[in-house]
Amino acid sequence: MKKSMHAPQVLNEPVKYVKPVSFSRGMRVDLGEWGILFISGTASVDKHGKTVYRGDLLAQSKRTFKNLTALLKSEGASWHNVVKTTCFLKDMLNYDAFNEFRNRFYKDQGLKMFPASTCVEACLCRADLLVEVELIAIFKIKRK
Amino acid sequence: MKKSMHAPQVLNEPVKYVKPVSFSRGMRVDLGEWGILFISGTASVDKHGKTVYRGDLLAQSKRTFKNLTALLKSEGASWHNVVKTTCFLKDMLNYDAFNEFRNRFYKDQGLKMFPASTCVEACLCRADLLVEVELIAIFKIKRK
Amino acid sequence: MKKSMHAPQVLNEPVKYVKPVSFSRGMRVDLGEWGILFISGTASVDKHGKTVYRGDLLAQSKRTFKNLTALLKSEGASWHNVVKTTCFLKDMLNYDAFNEFRNRFYKDQGLKMFPASTCVEACLCRADLLVEVELIAIFKIKRK
Repeated sequence: MKKSMHAPQVLNEPVKYVKPVSFSRGMRVDLGEWGILFISGTASVDKHGKTVYRGDLLAQSKRTFKNLTALLKSEGASWHNVVKTTCFLKDMLNYDAFNEFRNRFYKDQGLKMFPASTCVEACLCRADLLVEVELIAIFKIKRK
Repeated sequence: MKKSMHAPQVLNEPVKYVKPVSFSRGMRVDLGEWGILFISGTASVDKHGKTVYRGDLLAQSKRTFKNLTALLKSEGASWHNVVKTTCFLKDMLNYDAFNEFRNRFYKDQGLKMFPASTCVEACLCRADLLVEVELIAIFKIKRK
Repeated sequence: MKKSMHAPQVLNEPVKYVKPVSFSRGMRVDLGEWGILFISGTASVDKHGKTVYRGDLLAQSKRTFKNLTALLKSEGASWHNVVKTTCFLKDMLNYDAFNEFRNRFYKDQGLKMFPASTCVEACLCRADLLVEVELIAIFKIKRK
Protein backbone atom coordinates (compact mmCIF):
# COMPACT_ATOMS: atom_id res chain seq x y z
CA MET A 1 0.00 0.00 0.00
CA LYS A 2 2.94 2.39 0.70
CA LYS A 3 6.31 2.66 -1.01
CA SER A 4 9.11 5.17 -1.33
CA MET A 5 9.87 6.70 -4.73
CA HIS A 6 13.17 6.78 -6.59
CA ALA A 7 14.58 8.30 -9.77
CA PRO A 8 18.28 7.38 -9.56
CA GLN A 9 19.00 8.52 -13.11
CA VAL A 10 18.51 12.14 -11.97
CA LEU A 11 18.54 12.13 -8.13
CA ASN A 12 20.35 10.05 -5.56
CA GLU A 13 18.95 9.15 -2.16
CA PRO A 14 19.23 11.80 0.59
CA VAL A 15 20.49 9.09 2.97
CA LYS A 16 23.51 8.85 0.65
CA TYR A 17 24.42 12.51 1.09
CA VAL A 18 27.79 13.26 2.72
CA LYS A 19 25.64 14.40 5.62
CA PRO A 20 22.79 11.87 5.38
CA VAL A 21 19.20 13.11 5.57
CA SER A 22 16.35 10.72 6.35
CA PHE A 23 13.64 11.47 3.83
CA SER A 24 12.38 9.83 0.68
CA ARG A 25 12.23 11.61 -2.67
CA GLY A 26 8.54 10.80 -2.55
CA MET A 27 6.02 8.40 -1.04
CA ARG A 28 3.32 6.55 -2.94
CA VAL A 29 0.18 5.43 -1.16
CA ASP A 30 -2.49 3.37 -2.84
CA LEU A 31 -6.05 3.82 -1.56
CA GLY A 32 -7.98 1.11 -3.35
CA GLU A 33 -8.03 2.08 -7.01
CA TRP A 34 -6.35 5.47 -6.41
CA GLY A 35 -2.64 6.17 -6.26
CA ILE A 36 -1.46 9.24 -4.38
CA LEU A 37 2.08 10.57 -4.72
CA PHE A 38 3.59 12.91 -2.14
CA ILE A 39 6.80 14.23 -3.71
CA SER A 40 9.31 15.90 -1.40
CA GLY A 41 10.65 19.39 -1.83
CA THR A 42 12.79 18.97 -4.94
CA ALA A 43 15.47 21.32 -6.21
CA SER A 44 18.28 21.66 -8.73
CA VAL A 45 20.28 18.71 -7.47
CA ASP A 46 21.96 16.06 -9.62
CA LYS A 47 22.28 12.30 -9.29
CA HIS A 48 25.37 12.74 -7.11
CA GLY A 49 23.49 14.99 -4.68
CA LYS A 50 25.29 18.12 -5.84
CA THR A 51 23.65 21.48 -6.43
CA VAL A 52 23.81 22.31 -10.12
CA TYR A 53 23.43 25.69 -11.91
CA ARG A 54 24.45 27.97 -9.05
CA GLY A 55 23.08 31.48 -9.48
CA ASP A 56 20.94 30.62 -12.53
CA LEU A 57 17.21 30.70 -11.75
CA LEU A 58 16.09 29.48 -15.15
CA ALA A 59 18.50 26.55 -15.28
CA GLN A 60 17.67 25.59 -11.67
CA SER A 61 13.94 25.70 -12.45
CA LYS A 62 14.45 23.46 -15.51
CA ARG A 63 16.46 20.95 -13.47
CA THR A 64 13.92 21.01 -10.63
CA PHE A 65 11.06 20.22 -13.00
CA LYS A 66 13.16 17.58 -14.77
CA ASN A 67 13.71 15.87 -11.42
CA LEU A 68 10.00 16.10 -10.54
CA THR A 69 9.05 14.72 -13.96
CA ALA A 70 11.36 11.73 -13.44
CA LEU A 71 9.83 11.05 -10.01
CA LEU A 72 6.29 11.23 -11.44
CA LYS A 73 7.29 8.92 -14.31
CA SER A 74 8.86 6.41 -11.90
CA GLU A 75 5.32 5.57 -10.75
CA GLY A 76 3.67 5.83 -14.16
CA ALA A 77 2.31 9.32 -13.49
CA SER A 78 2.72 12.64 -15.29
CA TRP A 79 2.07 16.34 -14.78
CA HIS A 80 -1.53 15.68 -15.84
CA ASN A 81 -1.99 13.95 -12.47
CA VAL A 82 -0.57 16.77 -10.34
CA VAL A 83 -3.23 18.44 -8.21
CA LYS A 84 -1.13 20.72 -5.98
CA THR A 85 2.33 22.22 -5.97
CA THR A 86 4.04 24.30 -3.30
CA CYS A 87 6.85 26.45 -4.66
CA PHE A 88 9.53 28.11 -2.55
CA LEU A 89 11.69 30.84 -4.05
CA LYS A 90 14.78 32.04 -2.24
CA ASP A 91 14.13 35.52 -3.63
CA MET A 92 10.66 36.65 -4.70
CA LEU A 93 12.35 38.95 -7.22
CA ASN A 94 12.58 35.77 -9.31
CA TYR A 95 8.79 35.27 -9.27
CA ASP A 96 8.18 36.54 -12.81
CA ALA A 97 11.08 34.57 -14.26
CA PHE A 98 9.93 31.42 -12.46
CA ASN A 99 6.37 31.86 -13.74
CA GLU A 100 7.50 32.46 -17.31
CA PHE A 101 9.43 29.20 -17.15
CA ARG A 102 6.52 27.33 -15.55
CA ASN A 103 4.00 28.72 -18.05
CA ARG A 104 6.10 27.38 -20.91
CA PHE A 105 6.78 24.08 -19.15
CA TYR A 106 3.09 23.37 -18.56
CA LYS A 107 2.29 24.39 -22.15
CA ASP A 108 4.93 21.95 -23.39
CA GLN A 109 3.35 19.24 -21.23
CA GLY A 110 0.00 19.95 -22.89
CA LEU A 111 -1.73 20.78 -19.58
CA LYS A 112 -5.23 22.14 -20.04
CA MET A 113 -5.93 22.44 -16.31
CA PHE A 114 -3.21 23.73 -14.04
CA PRO A 115 -2.50 22.35 -10.55
CA ALA A 116 -3.51 24.35 -7.50
CA SER A 117 -0.38 26.09 -6.20
CA THR A 118 1.10 28.24 -3.49
CA CYS A 119 4.35 30.17 -3.90
CA VAL A 120 6.17 31.88 -1.03
CA GLU A 121 9.65 33.14 -0.37
CA ALA A 122 11.86 31.03 1.89
CA CYS A 123 15.49 30.27 2.52
CA LEU A 124 16.16 26.71 1.41
CA CYS A 125 18.32 23.98 2.90
CA ARG A 126 21.38 24.99 0.87
CA ALA A 127 22.42 28.59 0.36
CA ASP A 128 22.95 28.03 -3.37
CA LEU A 129 19.44 26.76 -4.12
CA LEU A 130 17.09 29.35 -5.64
CA VAL A 131 13.93 27.28 -6.05
CA GLU A 132 12.33 24.21 -4.48
CA VAL A 133 9.02 22.58 -5.43
CA GLU A 134 6.98 19.86 -3.72
CA LEU A 135 3.78 18.34 -5.12
CA ILE A 136 0.87 15.98 -4.71
CA ALA A 137 -0.36 13.85 -7.63
CA ILE A 138 -3.42 11.60 -7.73
CA PHE A 139 -4.24 9.07 -10.43
CA LYS A 140 -6.42 6.07 -11.09
CA ILE A 141 -4.42 2.86 -10.95
CA LYS A 142 -4.44 0.95 -14.21
CA ARG A 143 -5.37 -2.68 -13.65
CA LYS A 144 -3.12 -5.11 -15.45
CA MET B 1 -12.47 12.77 -11.64
CA LYS B 2 -10.39 15.97 -11.63
CA LYS B 3 -11.45 19.56 -12.33
CA SER B 4 -10.16 23.05 -11.71
CA MET B 5 -12.12 25.37 -9.43
CA HIS B 6 -13.42 28.84 -10.18
CA ALA B 7 -15.15 31.67 -8.31
CA PRO B 8 -15.24 34.45 -10.93
CA GLN B 9 -17.55 36.63 -8.85
CA VAL B 10 -14.65 37.25 -6.44
CA LEU B 11 -11.45 36.05 -8.17
CA ASN B 12 -10.32 36.01 -11.78
CA GLU B 13 -8.05 33.36 -13.27
CA PRO B 14 -4.30 33.75 -12.66
CA VAL B 15 -3.71 33.05 -16.36
CA LYS B 16 -5.58 36.32 -17.00
CA TYR B 17 -3.17 38.39 -14.92
CA VAL B 18 -1.19 41.08 -16.76
CA LYS B 19 1.73 38.72 -16.14
CA PRO B 20 -0.04 35.35 -16.52
CA VAL B 21 0.57 32.65 -13.91
CA SER B 22 -0.26 29.01 -14.62
CA PHE B 23 -2.13 27.76 -11.59
CA SER B 24 -5.75 27.04 -10.77
CA ARG B 25 -7.58 28.65 -7.86
CA GLY B 26 -8.15 25.10 -6.71
CA MET B 27 -8.35 21.52 -7.90
CA ARG B 28 -11.13 19.07 -7.11
CA VAL B 29 -10.44 15.35 -7.18
CA ASP B 30 -13.17 12.78 -6.62
CA LEU B 31 -12.07 9.47 -5.10
CA GLY B 32 -15.18 7.33 -5.35
CA GLU B 33 -17.70 8.82 -2.96
CA TRP B 34 -15.22 11.40 -1.52
CA GLY B 35 -14.51 14.82 -2.91
CA ILE B 36 -11.16 16.42 -2.08
CA LEU B 37 -10.49 20.11 -2.69
CA PHE B 38 -6.95 21.49 -2.87
CA ILE B 39 -7.35 25.27 -2.76
CA SER B 40 -4.35 27.36 -3.80
CA GLY B 41 -2.72 30.03 -1.68
CA THR B 42 -5.43 32.71 -1.66
CA ALA B 43 -5.03 36.34 -0.68
CA SER B 44 -6.77 39.69 -0.69
CA VAL B 45 -7.20 39.89 -4.44
CA ASP B 46 -10.35 41.01 -6.28
CA LYS B 47 -12.09 39.74 -9.39
CA HIS B 48 -9.83 41.88 -11.56
CA GLY B 49 -6.71 40.35 -10.03
CA LYS B 50 -5.85 43.50 -8.09
CA THR B 51 -4.61 43.55 -4.51
CA VAL B 52 -7.23 45.18 -2.31
CA TYR B 53 -6.90 46.71 1.19
CA ARG B 54 -3.21 47.60 1.10
CA GLY B 55 -1.73 47.87 4.57
CA ASP B 56 -4.88 46.66 6.36
CA LEU B 57 -4.41 43.21 7.93
CA LEU B 58 -8.00 42.85 9.10
CA ALA B 59 -9.56 43.84 5.79
CA GLN B 60 -7.12 41.62 3.87
CA SER B 61 -7.95 38.68 6.15
CA LYS B 62 -11.69 39.21 5.59
CA ARG B 63 -11.25 39.34 1.83
CA THR B 64 -8.98 36.27 1.85
CA PHE B 65 -11.58 34.23 3.75
CA LYS B 66 -14.38 35.59 1.52
CA ASN B 67 -12.46 34.35 -1.52
CA LEU B 68 -11.84 30.96 0.10
CA THR B 69 -15.51 30.67 1.08
CA ALA B 70 -16.56 31.34 -2.52
CA LEU B 71 -14.18 28.69 -3.80
CA LEU B 72 -15.49 26.14 -1.28
CA LYS B 73 -19.07 27.02 -2.20
CA SER B 74 -18.35 26.65 -5.93
CA GLU B 75 -18.06 22.89 -5.30
CA GLY B 76 -20.88 22.65 -2.78
CA ALA B 77 -18.51 22.61 0.20
CA SER B 78 -18.15 24.81 3.28
CA TRP B 79 -15.74 25.52 6.13
CA HIS B 80 -17.22 22.48 7.90
CA ASN B 81 -15.37 20.35 5.33
CA VAL B 82 -11.96 21.99 5.76
CA VAL B 83 -9.43 19.66 7.35
CA LYS B 84 -6.20 21.65 7.00
CA THR B 85 -5.16 25.22 6.40
CA THR B 86 -1.69 26.66 5.90
CA CYS B 87 -1.47 30.35 6.73
CA PHE B 88 1.37 32.64 5.68
CA LEU B 89 1.74 36.04 7.31
CA LYS B 90 4.11 38.61 5.85
CA ASP B 91 4.79 39.83 9.39
CA MET B 92 4.33 37.59 12.43
CA LEU B 93 3.58 40.76 14.44
CA ASN B 94 0.10 40.39 12.90
CA TYR B 95 -0.37 36.90 14.39
CA ASP B 96 -2.68 37.97 17.22
CA ALA B 97 -4.79 40.19 14.98
CA PHE B 98 -5.08 37.42 12.40
CA ASN B 99 -6.12 34.91 15.06
CA GLU B 100 -8.72 37.24 16.55
CA PHE B 101 -10.25 37.60 13.11
CA ARG B 102 -10.12 33.86 12.43
CA ASN B 103 -11.60 32.99 15.84
CA ARG B 104 -14.60 35.22 15.08
CA PHE B 105 -14.87 33.98 11.51
CA TYR B 106 -15.00 30.32 12.54
CA LYS B 107 -17.49 31.14 15.30
CA ASP B 108 -19.71 32.88 12.75
CA GLN B 109 -19.47 29.78 10.54
CA GLY B 110 -20.67 27.67 13.46
CA LEU B 111 -17.58 25.46 13.47
CA LYS B 112 -17.41 23.10 16.45
CA MET B 113 -14.19 21.42 15.31
CA PHE B 114 -11.42 23.56 13.91
CA PRO B 115 -9.21 22.53 10.97
CA ALA B 116 -5.64 21.47 11.58
CA SER B 117 -3.43 24.43 10.74
CA THR B 118 0.13 25.68 10.38
CA CYS B 119 1.04 29.37 10.39
CA VAL B 120 4.48 30.70 9.46
CA GLU B 121 5.95 34.00 8.38
CA ALA B 122 6.82 34.37 4.69
CA CYS B 123 7.16 37.03 2.04
CA LEU B 124 4.33 36.58 -0.43
CA CYS B 125 4.22 36.92 -4.20
CA ARG B 126 3.26 40.60 -4.06
CA ALA B 127 4.88 43.06 -1.67
CA ASP B 128 1.48 44.50 -0.68
CA LEU B 129 -0.05 41.20 0.46
CA LEU B 130 -0.06 40.65 4.23
CA VAL B 131 -1.74 37.25 4.45
CA GLU B 132 -2.20 34.17 2.26
CA VAL B 133 -4.09 30.98 3.12
CA GLU B 134 -4.28 27.62 1.33
CA LEU B 135 -6.47 24.71 2.42
CA ILE B 136 -7.61 21.14 1.91
CA ALA B 137 -11.28 20.18 2.26
CA ILE B 138 -12.78 16.68 2.15
CA PHE B 139 -16.47 15.86 1.89
CA LYS B 140 -18.80 13.04 1.03
CA ILE B 141 -20.31 13.50 -2.39
CA LYS B 142 -24.09 13.78 -2.32
CA ARG B 143 -25.67 11.40 -4.80
CA LYS B 144 -28.36 13.03 -6.94
CA MET C 1 -16.01 10.54 9.29
CA LYS C 2 -14.10 13.59 10.62
CA LYS C 3 -12.78 14.26 14.11
CA SER C 4 -10.28 16.53 15.81
CA MET C 5 -7.24 15.01 17.48
CA HIS C 6 -6.03 15.46 21.04
CA ALA C 7 -3.02 14.44 23.16
CA PRO C 8 -3.70 16.28 26.46
CA GLN C 9 -0.90 14.46 28.28
CA VAL C 10 1.62 16.45 26.20
CA LEU C 11 -0.28 19.30 24.52
CA ASN C 12 -3.25 21.42 25.55
CA GLU C 13 -5.80 22.82 23.14
CA PRO C 14 -4.85 26.03 21.29
CA VAL C 15 -8.30 27.45 22.14
CA LYS C 16 -7.16 27.28 25.78
CA TYR C 17 -4.14 29.52 25.18
CA VAL C 18 -4.09 32.88 27.02
CA LYS C 19 -4.68 34.29 23.55
CA PRO C 20 -6.94 31.57 22.09
CA VAL C 21 -6.20 30.24 18.61
CA SER C 22 -8.83 28.33 16.63
CA PHE C 23 -7.10 25.28 15.26
CA SER C 24 -7.03 21.60 16.15
CA ARG C 25 -3.83 19.71 16.95
CA GLY C 26 -4.86 17.48 14.08
CA MET C 27 -7.83 16.30 12.07
CA ARG C 28 -8.67 12.70 11.26
CA VAL C 29 -10.72 11.89 8.18
CA ASP C 30 -11.83 8.36 7.36
CA LEU C 31 -12.31 7.55 3.69
CA GLY C 32 -13.89 4.11 3.75
CA GLU C 33 -11.23 1.75 5.05
CA TRP C 34 -8.47 4.41 5.09
CA GLY C 35 -7.71 6.82 7.89
CA ILE C 36 -5.92 10.06 7.05
CA LEU C 37 -4.36 12.25 9.74
CA PHE C 38 -3.54 15.89 9.09
CA ILE C 39 -1.40 16.99 12.04
CA SER C 40 -0.94 20.72 12.57
CA GLY C 41 2.37 22.50 12.80
CA THR C 42 3.69 21.18 16.12
CA ALA C 43 6.52 22.60 18.19
CA SER C 44 8.25 22.40 21.55
CA VAL C 45 5.18 23.29 23.60
CA ASP C 46 4.07 21.58 26.81
CA LYS C 47 0.67 20.57 28.13
CA HIS C 48 0.18 24.05 29.59
CA GLY C 49 0.81 25.68 26.21
CA LYS C 50 4.21 27.01 27.24
CA THR C 51 7.31 26.97 25.06
CA VAL C 52 9.87 24.64 26.57
CA TYR C 53 13.66 24.40 25.99
CA ARG C 54 14.27 27.97 24.84
CA GLY C 55 17.43 28.25 22.75
CA ASP C 56 18.07 24.48 22.61
CA LEU C 57 17.51 23.07 19.11
CA LEU C 58 18.06 19.45 20.09
CA ALA C 59 15.74 19.53 23.11
CA GLN C 60 13.07 21.40 21.11
CA SER C 61 13.33 18.82 18.31
CA LYS C 62 12.93 15.97 20.80
CA ARG C 63 9.87 17.59 22.37
CA THR C 64 8.36 18.34 18.96
CA PHE C 65 8.67 14.71 17.88
CA LYS C 66 7.38 13.53 21.27
CA ASN C 67 4.28 15.66 20.75
CA LEU C 68 3.81 14.38 17.21
CA THR C 69 4.24 10.78 18.38
CA ALA C 70 1.53 11.27 21.01
CA LEU C 71 -0.83 12.73 18.42
CA LEU C 72 -0.21 9.81 16.06
CA LYS C 73 -0.72 7.33 18.90
CA SER C 74 -3.99 9.00 19.94
CA GLU C 75 -5.51 7.60 16.73
CA GLY C 76 -3.71 4.26 16.81
CA ALA C 77 -1.10 5.37 14.27
CA SER C 78 2.70 5.53 14.35
CA TRP C 79 5.60 6.99 12.40
CA HIS C 80 5.33 3.99 10.09
CA ASN C 81 2.15 5.58 8.74
CA VAL C 82 3.61 9.03 8.07
CA VAL C 83 3.83 9.81 4.36
CA LYS C 84 4.82 13.49 4.38
CA THR C 85 6.34 15.96 6.80
CA THR C 86 6.93 19.67 6.37
CA CYS C 87 9.64 21.03 8.64
CA PHE C 88 10.20 24.70 9.39
CA LEU C 89 13.45 25.82 11.00
CA LYS C 90 13.80 29.32 12.38
CA ASP C 91 17.44 29.27 11.37
CA MET C 92 18.74 27.03 8.59
CA LEU C 93 22.09 26.97 10.41
CA ASN C 94 20.39 24.30 12.55
CA TYR C 95 19.70 22.08 9.51
CA ASP C 96 22.51 19.60 10.18
CA ALA C 97 21.71 19.33 13.90
CA PHE C 98 18.03 18.83 13.13
CA ASN C 99 18.82 16.11 10.58
CA GLU C 100 21.17 14.30 12.95
CA PHE C 101 18.39 14.21 15.51
CA ARG C 102 15.79 13.08 12.97
CA ASN C 103 18.07 10.39 11.52
CA ARG C 104 18.47 8.89 15.00
CA PHE C 105 14.78 9.30 15.83
CA TYR C 106 13.64 7.46 12.71
CA LYS C 107 16.22 4.74 13.32
CA ASP C 108 14.91 4.31 16.87
CA GLN C 109 11.39 4.01 15.42
CA GLY C 110 12.61 1.22 13.15
CA LEU C 111 11.59 3.06 9.97
CA LYS C 112 12.79 1.33 6.81
CA MET C 113 11.13 3.83 4.46
CA PHE C 114 11.30 7.50 5.30
CA PRO C 115 8.44 9.95 4.77
CA ALA C 116 8.57 12.46 1.93
CA SER C 117 9.63 15.77 3.40
CA THR C 118 10.25 19.45 2.74
CA CYS C 119 12.33 21.66 5.03
CA VAL C 120 12.50 25.44 4.71
CA GLU C 121 13.49 28.35 6.94
CA ALA C 122 10.66 30.41 8.43
CA CYS C 123 9.93 32.57 11.42
CA LEU C 124 7.44 30.72 13.61
CA CYS C 125 4.49 31.96 15.61
CA ARG C 126 6.57 32.52 18.74
CA ALA C 127 10.00 34.10 18.72
CA ASP C 128 11.41 31.39 21.00
CA LEU C 129 10.45 28.43 18.81
CA LEU C 130 13.30 27.03 16.71
CA VAL C 131 11.51 24.19 14.92
CA GLU C 132 7.97 23.29 13.84
CA VAL C 133 6.82 20.15 12.01
CA GLU C 134 3.48 19.25 10.41
CA LEU C 135 2.67 15.89 8.86
CA ILE C 136 0.23 13.69 7.00
CA ALA C 137 -0.24 10.03 7.96
CA ILE C 138 -2.35 7.40 6.15
CA PHE C 139 -3.24 3.98 7.48
CA LYS C 140 -5.65 1.13 6.94
CA ILE C 141 -8.36 1.09 9.57
CA LYS C 142 -8.40 -2.06 11.62
CA ARG C 143 -11.88 -3.58 11.76
CA LYS C 144 -12.93 -4.60 15.27
